Amino acid sequence: MQLHLCTWIEVETYLQHNNSIIIPIGSTEQHGPTGLIGTDAICAEKVALGVSNNVKTIVAPTINVGMALHHTAFPGTISLRPTTLIVYVQDYVTSLAKAGFRKFFFINGHGGNIATLKAAFSQIYDYLDCLNLVNSDQVKCKIANWFMGREVYLLAKKLYGEEEGSHATPSEVALTQFVYPDVIKNAVLGEQVGKGHPIYGASNFRGCYPDGRMGSNPALATPEHGQQFYELAVKELTESYLEFIS
Amino acid sequence: MQLHLCTWIEVETYLQHNNSIIIPIGSTEQHGPTGLIGTDAICAEKVALGVSNNVKTIVAPTINVGMALHHTAFPGTISLRPTTLIVYVQDYVTSLAKAGFRKFFFINGHGGNIATLKAAFSQIYDYLDCLNLVNSDQVKCKIANWFMGREVYLLAKKLYGEEEGSHATPSEVALTQFVYPDVIKNAVLGEQVGKGHPIYGASNFRGCYPDGRMGSNPALATPEHGQQFYELAVKELTESYLEFIS
Amino acid sequence: MQLHLCTWIEVETYLQHNNSIIIPIGSTEQHGPTGLIGTDAICAEKVALGVSNNVKTIVAPTINVGMALHHTAFPGTISLRPTTLIVYVQDYVTSLAKAGFRKFFFINGHGGNIATLKAAFSQIYDYLDCLNLVNSDQVKCKIANWFMGREVYLLAKKLYGEEEGSHATPSEVALTQFVYPDVIKNAVLGEQVGKGHPIYGASNFRGCYPDGRMGSNPALATPEHGQQFYELAVKELTESYLEFIS
Amino acid sequence: MQLHLCTWIEVETYLQHNNSIIIPIGSTEQHGPTGLIGTDAICAEKVALGVSNNVKTIVAPTINVGMALHHTAFPGTISLRPTTLIVYVQDYVTSLAKAGFRKFFFINGHGGNIATLKAAFSQIYDYLDCLNLVNSDQVKCKIANWFMGREVYLLAKKLYGEEEGSHATPSEVALTQFVYPDVIKNAVLGEQVGKGHPIYGASNFRGCYPDGRMGSNPALATPEHGQQFYELAVKELTESYLEFIS
Amino acid sequence: MQLHLCTWIEVETYLQHNNSIIIPIGSTEQHGPTGLIGTDAICAEKVALGVSNNVKTIVAPTINVGMALHHTAFPGTISLRPTTLIVYVQDYVTSLAKAGFRKFFFINGHGGNIATLKAAFSQIYDYLDCLNLVNSDQVKCKIANWFMGREVYLLAKKLYGEEEGSHATPSEVALTQFVYPDVIKNAVLGEQVGKGHPIYGASNFRGCYPDGRMGSNPALATPEHGQQFYELAVKELTESYLEFIS
Amino acid sequence: MQLHLCTWIEVETYLQHNNSIIIPIGSTEQHGPTGLIGTDAICAEKVALGVSNNVKTIVAPTINVGMALHHTAFPGTISLRPTTLIVYVQDYVTSLAKAGFRKFFFINGHGGNIATLKAAFSQIYDYLDCLNLVNSDQVKCKIANWFMGREVYLLAKKLYGEEEGSHATPSEVALTQFVYPDVIKNAVLGEQVGKGHPIYGASNFRGCYPDGRMGSNPALATPEHGQQFYELAVKELTESYLEFIS
Repeated sequence: MQLHLCTWIEVETYLQHNNSIIIPIGSTEQHGPTGLIGTDAICAEKVALGVSNNVKTIVAPTINVGMALHHTAFPGTISLRPTTLIVYVQDYVTSLAKAGFRKFFFINGHGGNIATLKAAFSQIYDYLDCLNLVNSDQVKCKIANWFMGREVYLLAKKLYGEEEGSHATPSEVALTQFVYPDVIKNAVLGEQVGKGHPIYGASNFRGCYPDGRMGSNPALATPEHGQQFYELAVKELTESYLEFIS
Repeated sequence: MQLHLCTWIEVETYLQHNNSIIIPIGSTEQHGPTGLIGTDAICAEKVALGVSNNVKTIVAPTINVGMALHHTAFPGTISLRPTTLIVYVQDYVTSLAKAGFRKFFFINGHGGNIATLKAAFSQIYDYLDCLNLVNSDQVKCKIANWFMGREVYLLAKKLYGEEEGSHATPSEVALTQFVYPDVIKNAVLGEQVGKGHPIYGASNFRGCYPDGRMGSNPALATPEHGQQFYELAVKELTESYLEFIS
Repeated sequence: MQLHLCTWIEVETYLQHNNSIIIPIGSTEQHGPTGLIGTDAICAEKVALGVSNNVKTIVAPTINVGMALHHTAFPGTISLRPTTLIVYVQDYVTSLAKAGFRKFFFINGHGGNIATLKAAFSQIYDYLDCLNLVNSDQVKCKIANWFMGREVYLLAKKLYGEEEGSHATPSEVALTQFVYPDVIKNAVLGEQVGKGHPIYGASNFRGCYPDGRMGSNPALATPEHGQQFYELAVKELTESYLEFIS
Repeated sequence: MQLHLCTWIEVETYLQHNNSIIIPIGSTEQHGPTGLIGTDAICAEKVALGVSNNVKTIVAPTINVGMALHHTAFPGTISLRPTTLIVYVQDYVTSLAKAGFRKFFFINGHGGNIATLKAAFSQIYDYLDCLNLVNSDQVKCKIANWFMGREVYLLAKKLYGEEEGSHATPSEVALTQFVYPDVIKNAVLGEQVGKGHPIYGASNFRGCYPDGRMGSNPALATPEHGQQFYELAVKELTESYLEFIS
Repeated sequence: MQLHLCTWIEVETYLQHNNSIIIPIGSTEQHGPTGLIGTDAICAEKVALGVSNNVKTIVAPTINVGMALHHTAFPGTISLRPTTLIVYVQDYVTSLAKAGFRKFFFINGHGGNIATLKAAFSQIYDYLDCLNLVNSDQVKCKIANWFMGREVYLLAKKLYGEEEGSHATPSEVALTQFVYPDVIKNAVLGEQVGKGHPIYGASNFRGCYPDGRMGSNPALATPEHGQQFYELAVKELTESYLEFIS
Repeated sequence: MQLHLCTWIEVETYLQHNNSIIIPIGSTEQHGPTGLIGTDAICAEKVALGVSNNVKTIVAPTINVGMALHHTAFPGTISLRPTTLIVYVQDYVTSLAKAGFRKFFFINGHGGNIATLKAAFSQIYDYLDCLNLVNSDQVKCKIANWFMGREVYLLAKKLYGEEEGSHATPSEVALTQFVYPDVIKNAVLGEQVGKGHPIYGASNFRGCYPDGRMGSNPALATPEHGQQFYELAVKELTESYLEFIS
């Protein structure tokens, strides 16, 4: 059930019994020498479709560009500024809320989106209240990060230990390999990898993390791992979704 | 060559000989009782991939939500306000321009985006100049509407005559059927269809066009037609692209 | 009937039987070596007054600065950024809409305003709806470009052929000569004139069009031509206005 | 020397010896039962032309809509919000500053503009500095209110005493009568007139000042008075201008 | 009665009989070689507490950063841009207005805030009206500048004559000495002091006023003077407050 | 060393050897029936002064209004919208960065600020880079939440167990009692307290948490506890600060 493959009449019918929607949100940013630039959007969308299949809830179009300013010193990265992402998400949710949707479950693939997305939620509640939207107090937004689920975490720990790292991780790379088994990139990864530096601006980031990886060894990823991560993430976020709408 | 399936190192290499990029832009909006809500994004992306294949140019992630405020009285529509779309496109292009891209070829699937996108281009040229970006005067943006090509137009005329209409047209519906042959919607279309009304606000629009169609008969669409439209659009926009970058 | 020459009591009375208003919009920008910087505003205002006289509708103050960023490399040009023009027009229309006006007929003298003005209209409909304005769905905005009327076009073609060009045209220069017969500028125009280049940023534009003309020969203009253009434009836009409010 | 009647080449020449410009700013707002809605713009423009004639400085297009939110409960009033006026003036001045203008002398006809215009000046200095504009520290803006000059004040006092009031004053009405002797409105003014109330929001204002006058008796105005005010204002602002640019 | 020392239940009770609030607003900016950077906030807050004590009205948290862009060439200055201050004050007042407050008495310590604050008030009245706030027409904001009271002025004149100046004045320095008798700075003040220059941008300002003083001699200040200024200011603003709420 | 008690000359001297600054940020929001509305600002400021004393770093003025939209259904709460807080912090940091500060250590007292503040940091790095600020890549911002330190957490656990809750906690109330021992509020707390509900909009929040507490029992707080929390927080944030600037 993907919104972009529905007609408006199907949506109208759907709203008679369900006012929830799943919104995948990713990013378009460097993921190290071998990771796909679309990794975060690919993963979020894939997991969202799996959850949707379980819970029979419409999936909205993937927000494929997010807040990745700190990655913009690497070519290919596209980022919104936080204030842009806030107003973007506000317009996105407002359109759906005016039509009757009330529960917005964001499945997120990028840690850098979390702060701005949470800020956007606060702004949205206030904005819809200012619009005098009917039942605006029933509007609920939730962010669910597939990569932060407990079982996903434990699997990554088990498979990769310290080499999971925190960006361009083997777990997310594996998931993209599961989705695109024909698009697996090979490159010789340097032995040294940046690790443990706080994140500040874009050029500072590239100085600390010269090839884009943050403490990770994505060479460990396999499509089979990716399937495992996918299945665990779908399972965990299905539970999270059901709790959210209950 | 899709940006989201590249690594940043591949982009860095690409930029050594090519500073152009193709950006599909669609919309998420009602397309009549049988048209897919994602029609405009689906068509733009498909055509963009075809052009990319011809000209070996990277395709950026599809902008799948555009300016569709006049459709927002139909559930399922998601729209940005024009000022939001402008700042969104500005951030999008700025990220790429800082990395070295200079020519931005937008393949557009939605008439409602045209005005705002052109406004955004003006804003972008000025903004990049204010940033003191190197060679900012070489930044060029162009919007190419697949549905406005001469041969596409003539084919639609030939196949559908007056019943092509101007929204939820059989030509765009056909193109989505070509892309998604398994997702062809059937619904009894009313005999009467709104026609010829100017477009104002959302509720006015729904009053004039009760089922969302604008003078069109999308029941005439077939996947085979869609393939024809696709091929013509790719041919025409390939030419347009080559002229643009020359 | 010019708004700035009315009292508020006259407007209150007017609104009892008429909720339409005409808004001239021009630009303050270079018009080649002999064209007046105020050309677009002068023409729009003059035509608006002519139409007003025919249809007994109030003319609001001329918006004399528009979207002319691409002309800003020529001194004397003043431009708003698109987002500024949008919010400006929004405030302008909102003030009038709150007072009871519902139909806004913009008579435009500058091609560069069109995209941004259309974007502004979409933003306005949505904004007034958000304000819960009474009968906000009756708000209608229309842009009418005096220089795009069919008869105006044919006359320009007949008088000037290819030398009409597309900026600093003899037709618009003629119209300003009709309005200001004492302010006719003479300068030796170079034999070569930029032609056929797409419009990008300001410095790029000046590079392509070194003296500001776009394929035009304004030396052909005469005040008598100007009167003809004026009369045709008033005739055509009077019809357009009557259709708009019907 | 009006900018809109110059060519860009004339401006280029002008800038070789003069980097100053005069900008009239008025408002479009109710001026009581007999005052013209355009009073403030009419007066500012007229005085600006007089000063320009004395000092041979270009006059830019009149900013005819200003900050008049408190008058918007009277039909015919058009107002920008302060943030809109700030960004409008910023774009206006930025265009001219990039071309080489450095001294901006605003001749103002509306008390309600003063605070926002001063705020805009502060914003502009900072903005141009952020743009790294050459010699941005030489940019100077000044607001000169024709109605606040000492001699203008004394004349109003002498002619009208207490009946000058503070809005829809006989002095400004007189000045418009001098400019438009054929557009003198007659209406029976109520004996009672609002007086001495602080200004808050629009509906509050209309409650306090039911016919729009603030303690004034505009019936005392004559075109001859208007000429006197005009001459004094031009004299005083000419001096003010000369001091400003020295 | 300071808001930050109340509980929300105390505020709820307070609102049953009083819908007024006092808001101190200062600035964080250089005050010459011996003046405290927080001078304006310190003075505004101190006077506000004194007035509050007289009139039993809650004092909201001090707005300690204001509009001081022209001082930003001196280290330690922190300034908002005018548009930021406007939206800041708008959010501030909106929160309180939604809770039931209607009268907002700003006690101001910085001349540079006045224009922007007045602009903010206009924006707020309009905004609250757009929100359809109950009784939005009863919202009233007033700015009261402690340093502009007649008796304060006369005392400064008497004590310091011309040496009062207009920034880093002995009167405001004295007031801070009264508040912080242990934080009295000593520095050798240069004999020459900038005087009489208009205020433009930050670097221009520092050029005109090299040590930050504007025609003042703060060495004349004493804590005893400060107490006198405090008492007069409290007396005058108490009267002003009572008039405001009556 | 408080910025507001320094002169600009002292700041200039300071910057010769130290480019760091501590910025306390709190909130103005309900803290249950007995908690002070200023709790978060009071705590952040107190702890900041303690850290400052240890590390000899200037403390900037406390940001006393933050992001507390979800508390705005309780009177006395004042909140900025996230986009307002972002631009506020951007202006705040930009002023200091232009003067030479590079390391910004925010000591935060309110969980609701975290997301927006982190978003602001991303926006700031990008903005300063756009300004072409010298060494903009050395700008570093960090948020340190006093209430999240490990030892603070363990003490709260030990003293209050489950009754610590997550808003209007006995630990933060205790800290305010330590600061203001004379302002200890007594009220009978209901036996039932909201607990475990996710946070959405303001009216939803008040419905879930009728008296404002979130699972806490602030009656357990004592000034002596407050001193312990203060000392631990200062110790932990001193370490955090030293690590940040190293």
